[in-house]
Amino acid sequence: MALLIRGGTVVTAETTVRADVLCDGDKIIAVGPDLEAPAGADIIDAGGQYVMPGGIDPHTHMELPFMGTVASEDFYTGTAAGAAGGTTMIIDFVIPSPQQSLMEAYKTWRGWAEKAATDYSFHVAVTWWDDSVARDMGTLVQDHGVNSFKHFMAYKNAIMCEDEVLVNSFTRAWELGALCTVHAENGELVYHLQKKLIAQGITGPEGHPLSRPPEVEGEAANRAIRIAQVLGVPLYIVHVSCKEALEAISRARAEGQRVYGEVLAGHLVVDESVYRSTDFEFAAAHVMSPPFRSKEHQSALWRGLQSGNLQTTATDHCCFCAPQKAAGRNDFTKIPNGTGGVEDRMMVLWDQGVNTGRLTPNEFVKVTSANTAQIFNLYPRKGTVAVGADADIVVWDPKGTKTISAKTHHQNVDFNIFEGMTVTGIPSHTIAAGKLVYAKGELRTVRGAGRYVNRPAFPSYFEALKLVKDINTPKPVTRAAAAE
Amino acid sequence: MALLIRGGTVVTAETTVRADVLCDGDKIIAVGPDLEAPAGADIIDAGGQYVMPGGIDPHTHMELPFMGTVASEDFYTGTAAGAAGGTTMIIDFVIPSPQQSLMEAYKTWRGWAEKAATDYSFHVAVTWWDDSVARDMGTLVQDHGVNSFKHFMAYKNAIMCEDEVLVNSFTRAWELGALCTVHAENGELVYHLQKKLIAQGITGPEGHPLSRPPEVEGEAANRAIRIAQVLGVPLYIVHVSCKEALEAISRARAEGQRVYGEVLAGHLVVDESVYRSTDFEFAAAHVMSPPFRSKEHQSALWRGLQSGNLQTTATDHCCFCAPQKAAGRNDFTKIPNGTGGVEDRMMVLWDQGVNTGRLTPNEFVKVTSANTAQIFNLYPRKGTVAVGADADIVVWDPKGTKTISAKTHHQNVDFNIFEGMTVTGIPSHTIAAGKLVYAKGELRTVRGAGRYVNRPAFPSYFEALKLVKDINTPKPVTRAAAAE
Amino acid sequence: MALLIRGGTVVTAETTVRADVLCDGDKIIAVGPDLEAPAGADIIDAGGQYVMPGGIDPHTHMELPFMGTVASEDFYTGTAAGAAGGTTMIIDFVIPSPQQSLMEAYKTWRGWAEKAATDYSFHVAVTWWDDSVARDMGTLVQDHGVNSFKHFMAYKNAIMCEDEVLVNSFTRAWELGALCTVHAENGELVYHLQKKLIAQGITGPEGHPLSRPPEVEGEAANRAIRIAQVLGVPLYIVHVSCKEALEAISRARAEGQRVYGEVLAGHLVVDESVYRSTDFEFAAAHVMSPPFRSKEHQSALWRGLQSGNLQTTATDHCCFCAPQKAAGRNDFTKIPNGTGGVEDRMMVLWDQGVNTGRLTPNEFVKVTSANTAQIFNLYPRKGTVAVGADADIVVWDPKGTKTISAKTHHQNVDFNIFEGMTVTGIPSHTIAAGKLVYAKGELRTVRGAGRYVNRPAFPSYFEALKLVKDINTPKPVTRAAAAE
Amino acid sequence: MALLIRGGTVVTAETTVRADVLCDGDKIIAVGPDLEAPAGADIIDAGGQYVMPGGIDPHTHMELPFMGTVASEDFYTGTAAGAAGGTTMIIDFVIPSPQQSLMEAYKTWRGWAEKAATDYSFHVAVTWWDDSVARDMGTLVQDHGVNSFKHFMAYKNAIMCEDEVLVNSFTRAWELGALCTVHAENGELVYHLQKKLIAQGITGPEGHPLSRPPEVEGEAANRAIRIAQVLGVPLYIVHVSCKEALEAISRARAEGQRVYGEVLAGHLVVDESVYRSTDFEFAAAHVMSPPFRSKEHQSALWRGLQSGNLQTTATDHCCFCAPQKAAGRNDFTKIPNGTGGVEDRMMVLWDQGVNTGRLTPNEFVKVTSANTAQIFNLYPRKGTVAVGADADIVVWDPKGTKTISAKTHHQNVDFNIFEGMTVTGIPSHTIAAGKLVYAKGELRTVRGAGRYVNRPAFPSYFEALKLVKDINTPKPVTRAAAAE
Repeated sequence: MALLIRGGTVVTAETTVRADVLCDGDKIIAVGPDLEAPAGADIIDAGGQYVMPGGIDPHTHMELPFMGTVASEDFYTGTAAGAAGGTTMIIDFVIPSPQQSLMEAYKTWRGWAEKAATDYSFHVAVTWWDDSVARDMGTLVQDHGVNSFKHFMAYKNAIMCEDEVLVNSFTRAWELGALCTVHAENGELVYHLQKKLIAQGITGPEGHPLSRPPEVEGEAANRAIRIAQVLGVPLYIVHVSCKEALEAISRARAEGQRVYGEVLAGHLVVDESVYRSTDFEFAAAHVMSPPFRSKEHQSALWRGLQSGNLQTTATDHCCFCAPQKAAGRNDFTKIPNGTGGVEDRMMVLWDQGVNTGRLTPNEFVKVTSANTAQIFNLYPRKGTVAVGADADIVVWDPKGTKTISAKTHHQNVDFNIFEGMTVTGIPSHTIAAGKLVYAKGELRTVRGAGRYVNRPAFPSYFEALKLVKDINTPKPVTRAAAAE
Repeated sequence: MALLIRGGTVVTAETTVRADVLCDGDKIIAVGPDLEAPAGADIIDAGGQYVMPGGIDPHTHMELPFMGTVASEDFYTGTAAGAAGGTTMIIDFVIPSPQQSLMEAYKTWRGWAEKAATDYSFHVAVTWWDDSVARDMGTLVQDHGVNSFKHFMAYKNAIMCEDEVLVNSFTRAWELGALCTVHAENGELVYHLQKKLIAQGITGPEGHPLSRPPEVEGEAANRAIRIAQVLGVPLYIVHVSCKEALEAISRARAEGQRVYGEVLAGHLVVDESVYRSTDFEFAAAHVMSPPFRSKEHQSALWRGLQSGNLQTTATDHCCFCAPQKAAGRNDFTKIPNGTGGVEDRMMVLWDQGVNTGRLTPNEFVKVTSANTAQIFNLYPRKGTVAVGADADIVVWDPKGTKTISAKTHHQNVDFNIFEGMTVTGIPSHTIAAGKLVYAKGELRTVRGAGRYVNRPAFPSYFEALKLVKDINTPKPVTRAAAAE
Repeated sequence: MALLIRGGTVVTAETTVRADVLCDGDKIIAVGPDLEAPAGADIIDAGGQYVMPGGIDPHTHMELPFMGTVASEDFYTGTAAGAAGGTTMIIDFVIPSPQQSLMEAYKTWRGWAEKAATDYSFHVAVTWWDDSVARDMGTLVQDHGVNSFKHFMAYKNAIMCEDEVLVNSFTRAWELGALCTVHAENGELVYHLQKKLIAQGITGPEGHPLSRPPEVEGEAANRAIRIAQVLGVPLYIVHVSCKEALEAISRARAEGQRVYGEVLAGHLVVDESVYRSTDFEFAAAHVMSPPFRSKEHQSALWRGLQSGNLQTTATDHCCFCAPQKAAGRNDFTKIPNGTGGVEDRMMVLWDQGVNTGRLTPNEFVKVTSANTAQIFNLYPRKGTVAVGADADIVVWDPKGTKTISAKTHHQNVDFNIFEGMTVTGIPSHTIAAGKLVYAKGELRTVRGAGRYVNRPAFPSYFEALKLVKDINTPKPVTRAAAAE
Repeated sequence: MALLIRGGTVVTAETTVRADVLCDGDKIIAVGPDLEAPAGADIIDAGGQYVMPGGIDPHTHMELPFMGTVASEDFYTGTAAGAAGGTTMIIDFVIPSPQQSLMEAYKTWRGWAEKAATDYSFHVAVTWWDDSVARDMGTLVQDHGVNSFKHFMAYKNAIMCEDEVLVNSFTRAWELGALCTVHAENGELVYHLQKKLIAQGITGPEGHPLSRPPEVEGEAANRAIRIAQVLGVPLYIVHVSCKEALEAISRARAEGQRVYGEVLAGHLVVDESVYRSTDFEFAAAHVMSPPFRSKEHQSALWRGLQSGNLQTTATDHCCFCAPQKAAGRNDFTKIPNGTGGVEDRMMVLWDQGVNTGRLTPNEFVKVTSANTAQIFNLYPRKGTVAVGADADIVVWDPKGTKTISAKTHHQNVDFNIFEGMTVTGIPSHTIAAGKLVYAKGELRTVRGAGRYVNRPAFPSYFEALKLVKDINTPKPVTRAAAAE
């Protein structure tokens, strides 16, 4: 059934124009002034509002089994919460255990995700290495629409990749036309600091940021970037949280390297003082990695978004409730790592980004959907409001306000890291695949309505990198054989 | 009359898709697969070719009176040559003499430009200051579609602006919603070095780069950036030629400042060794400011384009023939400054940028038209291939080759700085305002067909900067009065 | 009469050794273990204490006529206060009015300074330019032991140097073997901001830092550095107060340029919040230029000292009492600029530098005397404890403590910017020119005992720079004459 | 017997003064003008010459067993060659095999070194880890005068340290007051590139630099620096060869970290083109790691020395003759890594450093001996010309010239990487431990005259770092226990 969004201002990464938007089925079929509504079309009045691409959150962990428990948010509740916040697609992570087959893990996650309310896709983690991993990577890219692989440089004795695995996996992904991503923290240093802090009697959540200082992230980010540079491959760094990592990215980009950086809404506005709260539940609820940082780092991250050195925003949405977090009451290293936000990201970004002049509305679209779509080769199917694109749209009320709270949010978790923050600029309607899934406070999502989205390999920047490689292929020197 | 471009691959800043493009009048009216040709439509076969927005050259000086002579290229020959190279719009400069009325100068240039073959617009230079200049700036922005002002930080005792003029003009332009641009060279140092070199007996063209070393440009770029930062205004730096200036821009951008940088095709591929040629004519033909630099700077400039720290490409097209250049035979400071390239820019950029993997085709579009259109608030009228945009289009043959030469070029000058360079990737057809103006080697431009393009004030980044300013407005401290 | 310092640990820039120090007349005549005291020698017991070179403060303004009043501290009270804090030499500034003869001003200051209690020398400011200035510079260097010239880039319409004066003066100083120094703030921007703030109703001292933001200093520092680079001359930047200026220096040094930076004790520990005090007298008492900055800048300055990118510490001691400061009660631009500290510097540096581990004791000596002596060509006469050096010595009690206060200090001013700071590490004895001038709280200075110190031109780094210049002297290209 | 050096100019890190120098036994006993010669003293006429501390080469590998062969230079021939070049002390490396006891290896090297002609000391490498290694580190520091440990980040499957070993060893060395040093190359990447190049048919020496590009070094340098930063310990990086590593060091130093960098004479003047020679012997003779780099890197390294971001110079003297190098004729990875230079370093540094104006003579002393002595806690016994210092002295003839050649050098190797370079500035006499060991071309060294030099732990910068650590020790947050 058709849906007409009338009277709004369409904002994309590039332009801001008064236009109506007509959707039919799951697609946008017209964008222009004064469109006529087909018979029976639903009509949304977007007067005084912005019509933008629905948000894409490229970093979520729905129902993740992790640290002996399982994330409380599942694929349905999580995508529904996203819809309530204007986000219409997530890219979640398949994380095989070491020695587990990638295909097996992939299938498990695909099963879990069938209940999703909006579209979704998967990055697949490489947590170990042998020939079967290389083979499964090929299968995933060629037959299953996966074009990105994740690598954890932290979590020693669990899923941490040593340099050898990074080199092998980056090399294999390049052959396949898939993008490598890394969680950048030096796991050896984290492990050392954790042991040392516990030995010093620092067992509470205040130990968490002390065990993962910014230098630990800066080191790993730089290492991954250098490895990618030597191998001639692109790289995407998830949840950049500190200026040390940002500087490594900015330096590499200034030298022409194709490196991308993602920042979480939480890292932009929550600071590290939370870990020193005397309320364990409050402090533990903020435990995630990398941890929240000081305000100096927040400023740096905003500047990263402004300068284009960081391109995407995400949440690392990974929810654990207080009873789960309590597992680490006497040892911060046992607190399940993770915080929520898939519902809040767009509002926090608008309020603290656009309302402050840090970002234009076009730039807001870039960092909440368009850039993600381009980097992960979903564009222009996702990430824009244009004829032929998927009808994933948010109608944004720049005057609307709301106070974020765990009491009222749709996320299936008992805590909200943005608790009490009053934002101006909120979604009034969310459309996913052409269906109205959220309207003025009312959630209309349908369990299982979301679709798995295939992402093709070889985005355009691979072609450019291939030319660079061809030109730089070394030639041997011809020499006379040694005299006998 | 309608024009259908059939069978090509449409490349914009954002996407690469197989699509036909239909133009009617001066507009694009349809973009999509398998468009039907209206009756009587001209049809261009773009099979195996790219269909891209026509180039915009934001830095030309047609028929400029300068250093006692007049540039040999006029608005007709220059825009026609541009069309032969796939460029369909120029932004030229109105340069009042000190004490001359801006409006008077503007009208003079408007008169000269009426013969142009393709669309054009004007930056207006501020070369002196009094209330009338401030008033004329207002008239130009509000009534004449000028949204950018140029400032020369070099050319002491002629058109050089001291800091006082920069501060006044930047402040006034901000009120008007217009962008300030600067030619960044420290004129005091240039003047000192010129005198010193002549005194040392260095009178030939080899003295030119010695009198304008990169530090001189780096200083001025940084100064203009800091002034803009203190005043809270955006800034555009023309013809960035060296890493010192690029680093100043990159630093500012990394700190969130809205600073833009332009690079010339010549600075990307021609190096400073030309000035030491024993052939005076050859050396003098390369005299322009800033001068060509060493290869180290060229690499830096390419990286600037790749990282997005530089956004636009131009030519500073300003032609003088050998007899004109001869005025400085015994004193390099008297050689008229300027070189050509409006015809060559797109081909040089493609050959050295896209064919080498430095840029993707989408990035090529960004740096040859889209970014310029966005910065100077012409987008999406110019800079994209989309319904509603002006039908300024180049059909690009990525396999076509050509050897650049003054003997065969359409530019009205006896020299070409790219002489002998064989490029792969050339325009097969150029369409300007819906008319075919160049087709496979044949120029079909019409004298006077070009139109003056109004550029509205207050591009979107002004709104963001205003919010920043409002938030940062200082508040006085309340204090008790002094005791009597 | 001889003086033996017995039982201490001698700390120089290079070494830390247990040794006695024997002085005779105004010189050190022996340094070694277990020296025998000559008959009748005074003996100082330095057990458990450090024996270090007396401090050199390279930036003071005793009895300066400025902004319609005269600094309250004169050469006697000021040098005596210095002695009480372990400082045994100052380099003050001769500041001619525009159009005033440099020699005349120099003689005036020499007259004022005759009352000094410890040794002193002068930098001479160049505040305007004509041939007589160039000539007087020669006389000062060749006949009067001046080897440094100062340039103000701020104070528009008063003593500000435009680039033209900088270029002329730097060039002349180079010929003479003298070092140029700059006060780096862009005076044009300061002037603009002052007018704007007053117009906005910001008339109190809080307007002072707003009118001189760090960018204004960063700009000027970079400009002076670039001018020095182009001219191939060394440069010394006084009172570096912010990371923007420090970064310009660090960049230049990393590129091999000989640039030196000085930091004031006040900028290291006082922050900008003082200007927002509701007590006018308190706020105004802190008005100096550049203003105190935020803590982020303080950290940067400490790192500058640690890394060696900043080499010297000073005070810009320039005292005005409350009634003098009151001149600007209704207009912050009229508050006489200046704060004290010549007595406090060494203690503040030790307490916040050495006790925190930022600096080793050797590094403390470097930044309080040795580096200054080397840069201004006083070494090894000053700045070390060695045979043949002047007997300017401080015996330092690392366990001694003291609370700094205007109530107890020896400085002739009614305010102390370090008020209430309790320091650990204080001088127990100060020896100047072989005489005990301060002993455990008792001041024994003699009016007029201080001597004018000649500083020879051409310090060693000039020789190196000359070689660089000779090697880089450009050669003309030989070309055939033009055909007739 | 006494030795008087008469009529020269004594140059130390700090001063340049006309003075005679009197040695007795192995010590300097007087420095001053017009010293009287004791009866029977030998007298050296140093008129027109500089008298400087003998060079210290902190990076040599005499008679090293490596890659299946043994370095051709032994401790006698090597130290004698050093003496011929003005170098009077080396610090060599004890390199235990993995699983070999450190003490056992140390004793082996001590035995080999007994034949040395001049003083020497040892760094000890940590190539593996268990409790015995930690214990032996303690013994070496406390009982054997070792205060530095070396770590190889390259040479996978041989002596490469993973991060875990680095963390353990850095932590242990800190407890002991010893400095850690690293060979910074990412061994995993080198290994990957070697395999790939061989697979591509690049088997000649041209493959060597391709397998160890600058990024590989930059990565490892940054990683080691970050690990040291997190652990709060100082760090010394050997043979910095590229701007990537230098930038990591400079950044860390600018942030106040105590990181030191060493540069080899070879990396300053030899460039990577040598590896593409068609003469295998010539190319292979230059194989060392890190490899020689392009001229851009050489310039950066010189600037590093000038700015103080690099502090020491060395040679990594490790000689293999042509028949040894031939082992890698068909596989560059089998060419024994190493080049010579212990004899040439001082002359190359003077000629290319002082004669070009890059360094003053005082700075030459800093980078050839004084800084090394300070960092490795040998100062002021070594590294200066002062009363009480060891009589290790070079009398330097700044006008003397010589053409470096394997045909005439004293080094026991058939190749010289500086072959054919004519230097101005050569030693006329070398004194080691008070004995004349080289005089105007004649070598007078005595086998076994050299002494093992104990280096005490806890140099002064450790004290400062300890204060920093104490101040930053984290405190736990007190929280109520969980409710039952």
